[in-house]
Order: sequence, then C-alpha cells, then structure tokens
Amino acid sequence: MKIGFIGLGNMGAPMALNLLKAGHAVNVFDLSAQVVQALVDAGAKAAGSPKAAVTDVECVITMLPAAAHVRSVLSADDGVFAGIAKGVTIIDSSTIDPASVKAFAELAVQHGNTFVDAPVSGGTGGAAAGTLTFMVGGSADAYEQVKPVLSAMGKNIVHCGDTGTGQVAKICNNLVLGITMAGVAEAMSLGEALGIDSKVLGGIINTSTGRCWSSDTYNPMPGVIETAPSTRGYTGGFGTDLMLKDLGLATDAAKFARQPVYLGALAQQLYQTMSTKGAGRLDFSAVIKLYRKDGKDGKDGKDGKDGKDGDAS
Amino acid sequence: MKIGFIGLGNMGAPMALNLLKAGHAVNVFDLSAQVVQALVDAGAKAAGSPKAAVTDVECVITMLPAAAHVRSVLSADDGVFAGIAKGVTIIDSSTIDPASVKAFAELAVQHGNTFVDAPVSGGTGGAAAGTLTFMVGGSADAYEQVKPVLSAMGKNIVHCGDTGTGQVAKICNNLVLGITMAGVAEAMSLGEALGIDSKVLGGIINTSTGRCWSSDTYNPMPGVIETAPSTRGYTGGFGTDLMLKDLGLATDAAKFARQPVYLGALAQQLYQTMSTKGAGRLDFSAVIKLYRKDGKDGKDGKDGKDGKDGDAS
Amino acid sequence: MKIGFIGLGNMGAPMALNLLKAGHAVNVFDLSAQVVQALVDAGAKAAGSPKAAVTDVECVITMLPAAAHVRSVLSADDGVFAGIAKGVTIIDSSTIDPASVKAFAELAVQHGNTFVDAPVSGGTGGAAAGTLTFMVGGSADAYEQVKPVLSAMGKNIVHCGDTGTGQVAKICNNLVLGITMAGVAEAMSLGEALGIDSKVLGGIINTSTGRCWSSDTYNPMPGVIETAPSTRGYTGGFGTDLMLKDLGLATDAAKFARQPVYLGALAQQLYQTMSTKGAGRLDFSAVIKLYRKDGKDGKDGKDGKDGKDGDAS
Amino acid sequence: MKIGFIGLGNMGAPMALNLLKAGHAVNVFDLSAQVVQALVDAGAKAAGSPKAAVTDVECVITMLPAAAHVRSVLSADDGVFAGIAKGVTIIDSSTIDPASVKAFAELAVQHGNTFVDAPVSGGTGGAAAGTLTFMVGGSADAYEQVKPVLSAMGKNIVHCGDTGTGQVAKICNNLVLGITMAGVAEAMSLGEALGIDSKVLGGIINTSTGRCWSSDTYNPMPGVIETAPSTRGYTGGFGTDLMLKDLGLATDAAKFARQPVYLGALAQQLYQTMSTKGAGRLDFSAVIKLYRKDGKDGKDGKDGKDGKDGDAS
Repeated sequence: MKIGFIGLGNMGAPMALNLLKAGHAVNVFDLSAQVVQALVDAGAKAAGSPKAAVTDVECVITMLPAAAHVRSVLSADDGVFAGIAKGVTIIDSSTIDPASVKAFAELAVQHGNTFVDAPVSGGTGGAAAGTLTFMVGGSADAYEQVKPVLSAMGKNIVHCGDTGTGQVAKICNNLVLGITMAGVAEAMSLGEALGIDSKVLGGIINTSTGRCWSSDTYNPMPGVIETAPSTRGYTGGFGTDLMLKDLGLATDAAKFARQPVYLGALAQQLYQTMSTKGAGRLDFSAVIKLYRKDGKDGKDGKDGKDGKDGDAS
Repeated sequence: MKIGFIGLGNMGAPMALNLLKAGHAVNVFDLSAQVVQALVDAGAKAAGSPKAAVTDVECVITMLPAAAHVRSVLSADDGVFAGIAKGVTIIDSSTIDPASVKAFAELAVQHGNTFVDAPVSGGTGGAAAGTLTFMVGGSADAYEQVKPVLSAMGKNIVHCGDTGTGQVAKICNNLVLGITMAGVAEAMSLGEALGIDSKVLGGIINTSTGRCWSSDTYNPMPGVIETAPSTRGYTGGFGTDLMLKDLGLATDAAKFARQPVYLGALAQQLYQTMSTKGAGRLDFSAVIKLYRKDGKDGKDGKDGKDGKDGDAS
Repeated sequence: MKIGFIGLGNMGAPMALNLLKAGHAVNVFDLSAQVVQALVDAGAKAAGSPKAAVTDVECVITMLPAAAHVRSVLSADDGVFAGIAKGVTIIDSSTIDPASVKAFAELAVQHGNTFVDAPVSGGTGGAAAGTLTFMVGGSADAYEQVKPVLSAMGKNIVHCGDTGTGQVAKICNNLVLGITMAGVAEAMSLGEALGIDSKVLGGIINTSTGRCWSSDTYNPMPGVIETAPSTRGYTGGFGTDLMLKDLGLATDAAKFARQPVYLGALAQQLYQTMSTKGAGRLDFSAVIKLYRKDGKDGKDGKDGKDGKDGDAS
Repeated sequence: MKIGFIGLGNMGAPMALNLLKAGHAVNVFDLSAQVVQALVDAGAKAAGSPKAAVTDVECVITMLPAAAHVRSVLSADDGVFAGIAKGVTIIDSSTIDPASVKAFAELAVQHGNTFVDAPVSGGTGGAAAGTLTFMVGGSADAYEQVKPVLSAMGKNIVHCGDTGTGQVAKICNNLVLGITMAGVAEAMSLGEALGIDSKVLGGIINTSTGRCWSSDTYNPMPGVIETAPSTRGYTGGFGTDLMLKDLGLATDAAKFARQPVYLGALAQQLYQTMSTKGAGRLDFSAVIKLYRKDGKDGKDGKDGKDGKDGDAS
C-alpha cells in the first residue's frame, strides 16, 4: 500500500519504519531533515510538504504533538487537504482532544475524506517493537479499513466507537493512570514514614484491593519493582510533562463535557508542580518526590533523560 | 487451644465460629446477648465480661469498631488486663490507628503480655469462608506464635514488620483503594459524558496502564463488571462509611507522621459528601453518583443495605 | 465621539446606553434584533454587521461572551478588520484569556490598529449605573486614549500594564473570589454543624483575620448579610456558571503559564458540580449547598433567576 | 482577685503579666523554671504544681499547647481538680478541639466547677499589648463572670454561645484564613507568571471582590504590603506549623461533625508540604513558595525565626 506519513518524532519514526518493514511504500514528511533522512535510508521517500507526502497515496497517517499541529498540517496551503485524493482515509495517531477530532472529521468529510482517530499506548518501546495498542474512533467500516495498516505497527487494534472515542479512551485511561500513580506515591511515602518496609507494603498492595499497574509494574518507590523507572533514577519511562499534557487534555475534555474531575484536577496540579520545579523530564512516577522527606531520594529532581523515551502509555 | 474472643460483630462472629470449627475452645464476650447466644449454640462459652473471657486462656483475640473500644476492653476494671495471665498474647484484629497500637503494646508489656496487631481484609465473605488476609505487626517470634491461630480464620497470614505495621499496611492499601475507586469513577463518568460505551472503556482500562482492582473487579459503572456492587444497586460490598473510616485513619496517620496526602484528603471529602448526603450505607463505589448527571443512575442515593455486609477490604 | 459598539448582552446594552447618555454617537451591532431596537430607540444607529458598525468610527468597543466570538467579530469577512480605519483603537471588554488578547493585539497591529483589553467588574448593576471598574491592558498612551471613553461607563479606570494584563487582573481577582467563597461556605457550614450561631460566627470572621468580601458582603449562609443573594434564595448576584467560566479561564491561564493552582482547580470542580447538578443559574454563593446537610436550605438547587443579572464581579 | 495561671509560653507569659498589671494576685505554674521566675520577678507567686497554683484562688486560667496538656493539667494527681475549690470557674484559652472542651466541661461539672473555653486571636503582639480578642464559649452567666478578668488581657471579649463555641469560632475563622492565604498565593503567583506587576495586582484585588485580610494586610508576595511578613523574609508572623495545627483541628472537627471541608483539607496538605520540606517555622504566608518558580524568592525555605512569635490570629 502507498502511505503518506507525517510527523517523525520519537513515536512516529519507528512507526513509519515498521510500515516499511511490512512492505508498504511510505512518503514521509517532517520539519527535521535529519529524521527524514533516517527514514529515507530505510526505504522511505522524502516529501517537501504534507501536500507532497499525500499526493497519490491510499492512506495518510499523522503523528503530531498537539491539535494545533494537526490543524496546520491538514489545512495549510501546502497541507494534506491540498494534495489528498477523494476517498482516502486519514488516520491521526496524535493524542489530542476529542472536540478537535470532531472538527477535523467534519473538515475531512467536506473534502471527501474520512478521518479516524487512533491514538496509541505502549510508548517508544512499543513503537519500535510494533506492539502498540491503537484505540480507534470511527465507523465500523472505517475501522475494518484501517485495521490492516495499523496491524503493521501494533498488536492490539481496538475499536472504541464513533469518531473521537479513540481519544476519549486514551484520555480516560491516562486520567486513571495519573491519579493512581500519585495515590500510590502517597501511600508508599506514608508507609515509609510510618516504618513499614517498602517491599513488604508493595507486596501487600499488589495482592490486595489496592493493586494497580502504578503499584505492581511501575511502583514509584525505588527498589519495590526492579524494572520500574523509580529503580533507575526515574529515567526513561513516561515523562512527567507528557502525563501533564494528558491530564490537561482530560481536564479540558471534562470542562467541555461539563463534568467534575476532582482527583484529576488535583493530580494535574501535582505533576505541574513537579514540572514547575524543574522535574518535567523525569518519569512521571517521580511525583513521589513531592511526598518523601528531603534527602530520602538521593536525587535533586532535575536530572533524568528525556521523558519522551518512554515505554508506558 | 483455649481462646478468649471479644467483639462478635459482622466480622467477629464468623471468625469466632471458624475457631470453633477448627477445634479450639472459645470464650466469647459481646454487649449483644443475641450474638453471644448464637456462638454459644455453636459451642462457645459465654463470658460476662472481657475479664471473664480471658481468664485461663492461652490467646486473646479482639475485633472491635475503633481504638476507643479496644482501650476500654483492655483497661476497664473488668477488662482484659484484669483477667489475663502473664505471657498470653493479645491479637487485635480491629482496624485502628498505628499510634494506638503502640500505646496498647506498651500497656501489654507492662502487664507481662504481648500485643500483636492483625487487621484483616476480605470482608464478611472472607470471614465466613475463613479466607481472610491477616496483616500482622509484631516480632518474628510473635508472628510465628499467632500464625497457627490466625490460619483457622484466614488464608494469607502476612508478617508486615514490627508492632503497628499491620495497621500501616491495611491503612495504606485502603488509602490507595479509596483513591483509585474515585479516580475510576471520574474517568468512567467522563467517558460516559463524552460518548464512549462504558463496557468498551472498562475493557480498555482493564488491559492498559489504568488497570486496577477498582476498575477490573469493582468497576463503579453499572454493567461493566457483572459481579460488582454497582451492578446490583450498590448494595452489599464495602460500605461508604467504612471507607470513610479508613480514610480518616489514613489522614490521621499522615498528620501524625507529618506527611502530605493530597489525593487521600480529597478522596475523604468525596466519601464524606456521600455520607453527609445520606448514602453512607451504599457500597463505596457509589461515589460515582457524585459525578454522573442526575437521572442516569436510577437511584436516590439513600437506599442500599448495610454497607457492613461487605466482601471487599 | 463616534463609537462602534458590538455585543449588546446583559452588560453591553447598558454600557452602550451610557455612551449615548454621555453624548457619544454610537453604531451598534448584535445578532438580536430586539436588543438592537432598544438601543436605536435610545438614539443609537443600527448596523447590519460588525464591518458596518465600525466604518468611520473613532473607537470600537466589543463586549462578547468568549474569545471565539471576539475572533469571529474581528476577522470575519464582514468583521471589524474589514471596515475599520487605520489608527482606530479597539477596546475589548469581554472576559477572555490573556493569550487570545495577545493574538488579537498582533492582528490589530497588522491592520494598523491598537487593541486594548478592558474587562470589567461591577456586574449588570454597575453597568446600568455607570460605575463599572475597567481593568485596562495596553501601553500608557493607549490607556490615556481610552480612559475618557471608558469613564462614560465606569468609575474606576485602572491601568494594569501591557496588553493582556487587564484580563490577568480580572482572572486573578476572580480566582481569589471563587476560592474565598467556597472557603467561607465550608467554614460557615462547619460552624453550623458544630452548633455556633451563624450570625455570631459571621460577625467574628468579619472582624478577624478571616474577613473577606465573600464573608462580609456576600456571605453564603442565609441571614448573615441581609443584602446578600443567599438571603434571597441565591437569586440575582453573580451566576455559578459565570464563576465557572472565570475559573476555567484561570486554570487555562495557569496551564499556559505552567503554574500550579491547587485551590483554584478544586474550586472549579465544586462550581462544576453545582452546575452539573442543575444549579448553574443560582448565585455562586449557592456552592454552600454542597456542604450543608439536606433539608437545611429549603431549596432544591434548581430554582433561581438567570445568574447573569448579577451585581458582583 | 486571686487567680491561678497555668502555662507561661509565648502567649501565656504576657497574658499573666497583664493580670498582674491590672492588680490581680496571680499564682503561676509552668514546667520551665525560667519563665516562672520572670513572672515572680513581676509580682506573681510560684506554685510547684497545678494543684498548688489553684488552691484558694477565685479563678483559674490555662494556656496550653494542645488538648492532651489540658487533660493532664486538669486530671493529674497534682492537677487542677485536686486543688480547686467548688464553684471556681476554669477559663481555658488554649486552642483545642470543641469535643475535648465538652469532655472537660463535664468533668468540671462533676467537680462542682464551671469550664469556659476562651481561645484568643491577636498573637504575641496582642498578648503583650493586652489587645487580644477572646472568643468565649459558655452560659450567659459564665460569660458575664469571666468578662472582667479577660478584659485585663484583651480588648474584645466576644460571647460565641454555649460551651465549645469559642473554639468553633476560632477554628472556623482560621479555616477561612488558611484557605484565603493559599488562594491569594496562587493568584499572586499566577499574576506574576503572566506578567502583571504584583503591586498593581494587589491593589486591584484589595479594592475588588477578592479583597481579604490575606491580601490587603498579609499579602504573601514580597513588596505588596510593606508591613507583611513576606516583605521581611517571612519571619515573625503566624508560623506555618501553627496554621497546620489549626487546620488539623478544623479537619478533625469536620470529621467529628461529618462535614466535608474540601478546600480546608487541601490547604492542610499545602502547609504540611511546607512543614515536611523544612519551612514550618516561617510565617504561613510562605506557602507562596510552593507556587513561585525557583529562584524568584531568594530564600531556601528553611530560614526564619520561630513562627510562634506571631502577631496574627
């Protein structure tokens, strides 16, 4: 299949690579010449604009940081709508707000195209391994149509419902994730202050009603889970600033839907505080630093690799 | 073994019954003549006071609503310390604050006894089935000593560390539980308002990073998990007022330890609001009623059986 | 002076009327023919579009519900920029986010105009009486230029700093207001539950360190302040949905500035809950209904006049 | 009048001094020989125990850190009840929980005495100057009886209602205070981040609906109010740990009364975080340090004099 791929960041580049490996012909566009060249070396064809990337393709995939970028890539003079043929489906794997998805879908209909939201979980690790989960919003027909393409990049291709529900699923899951992580951080810190061994406490929670991914897989207390970012200085993983972005989308969506999100709004403030104090690039489980007494973490809260190199969510 | 058992409530009565079934001789005391008679009918010996219940026994077990009751049962003129022989161990399975545990343990030492905290999880279902989890705080010797007795009433007998750490484990687990339940309630309500099918959303969360007991076993949105209290009108389960009590213990312990518990303190307010508005006896997953738009739950928030008849925590 | 006035809602209409009373010639535009006619009856000249309203004027004033309306009024084909002469100043008295202000100001510069943000406080009462406070963001020159025009509609014309700072002042003040009102509601409800007379408690707070406008002027407990909306069933005043809008702007601005706003985000959830449960049109002091036990307020939370007819903020 | 005074801390010592100045004969007791000697030098008579201090007096005044101290001073073998004559009134000016007040009042009745709660506001400055406010809980008769004695130490002697309502008034006022201070800190920090001058913003808030003592008298942003602790490095004033104690009392009272206190519980966490991070002795307005970006406050959050030397609340 001939595919136009726009947005070759930490996630987009390995995704496009997997499309090439699966035998697809891929036109790529990104503002960074360096990442474009890496894909060209792997067999992609470089395009000078989104418009150029989507001319004559059978499918368009976008993977961009925020709704504003998607809007620009779609509607600019040299954008997707300027070059795309009628009937071609646009798959947007960016994580953006559901209201923007609906607006883009209407624009697509006006141009004779279909717009499907398909945000992912699985991080850069899943992107490289081709084991991402895609949460797809669109009609049953559209889902069936995009499933084969997405299968080259992911393991689970889940149909969430109509247009926008892919984003809703992603946002709601990460809302729970942001809350549970901060909740586990509170409980583990409280337990530490009250004198229980962290491994014992983790073990009890993980076999009881408090069990959750944030405790049994990504426990924020160093040493409880050997493979968690907390045990390697909160490096790698899912960056605090990315969690902050997703909680921002969740609270925005809640405002749009006129729904209260008490714990979500508070969790957002906790990650914002981490970011404001300079720890935005640490794994989001570093939120536990807000709770532990000074000197107990052996870190200054400012180191850590780029949080984007994550393997969570 | 000859055991004195004090406190025959919804949890204590089936626990004492299991001791009888295991062949122990059990002296029982409770303020309610009715529950005492039920145990006597099953083979227990009624005692007229805590003092009378513990004379000549090899082990004392208390299962009471709050620290004030434990204090009174221990120290009253006709209390445990007035009748207990030196060297006998007192096992308190009540859920109380760790600071009180330490005070009771010191009193016990002064009387030549050992005090072990052993709060439970598993609810009245686990108490009846003998499948409770006991979280034991005390020395390694004390743990080895009480393990056989507790095994007649529970399946998992976990040694948490020194005196008080059993309570710390219970409190910290339920802190996570109270937060995750409210967090899942927010996310499921937000998803509903944004138009995603609740079963689809539940399915995604339960296989992703948001997965937790509050979502995959006790999901607060009716219909997502067939066996959850939400699907039977929030009856049975773990009562809102009991969760409120445990979050009260958690925030008290945090105050004592001078630790912040942002989400825990906020979750406490949410369950308090439920209780203040008359829903204290519903299962704690009914907290989702705070989020869903009126008319969507088909309930007035005031029905439901006694929340004490729970099978969670 | 010849002025174009766009947006004749509950606030805009009386403001335009005061301009007429001061002797200005006013072109008016609004989507509602009815409100336009009322102004025409008072001496204004009706315009068929924003473009038509601003042709040949010396000053343009906009008073609109949200940033999206301002954007449309400015940039539509028959919008302000299509008709305005170079050098004319646009005064926007809408309450919108500071980032949009800066975007509009840049557009204005491109068209050879100056854009000044001048949101108001004082409510519909102040608008009618011509006693509004205007918080002006713009250069010192621009401030001096708009001051005489604004003086026809308000009593205090405050220069807040550069473009956008008028909105910052408005948003930050209302952030404090939303928090203090909910805080006073908590304290008055707690005092009531603990048995102190509400008037006595109000009196103590109002002469002590807890004193604030939300207590000494707008106390949410009925009967404490005779002239407060709480004493007349939470009618009139400043509507819950308007406070919710302003807290939405504050939390959006905080997200933009990467600043935590813990209490603001939580207060937003409280007003959102009121709105979700159907009380959005009551005065925002009705937030106390979330705290008082059922049956103590004699209201069902759904009555009340349109919150827009307010005299606060 | 002959008075027994127990508790000569930062508040108690100057209060006892003012009784001496007013011509009363005062027996004093404190665990610190040094503070007792200072009072003896001023004309007081030292007592070796609370019992000794209250023998033959016409009135007893206690000023102690917490309810546990009051309980001990009243009920110990050499305590107040062991020495006091029937009919003598006990005035407790400590800040403690209303439930303890009621328990102490019942004990007093059993001994033939009257117990009046009379917590103060005005800080050490007001204690020295004799300008404290006393919030008195007790019968109208008891109020009339204690008023002359309290007038030697304070300016406003307010009758709040029955026993315990003095504490309720104090706690509810400080609940509002703790919330408004953190709210003002959020708004001033947000304004700073958004580029408005802090003095301008403070001026607008202080003449608008956001005005409150925490902004117009004790503004947490340095330089806005010249006489505020923020302008002198957060020294002096009302210590963070004291505010934390009072919010602890408020949330405890709310738990007792089964009332939600959303903002109060969250504010408690903010001051707890300050204390946990080492800033407990700074004035409570230092809570703004949680919000401002690093490097903007020129402080490390750990300096500052003893927060007890306060002039607020």
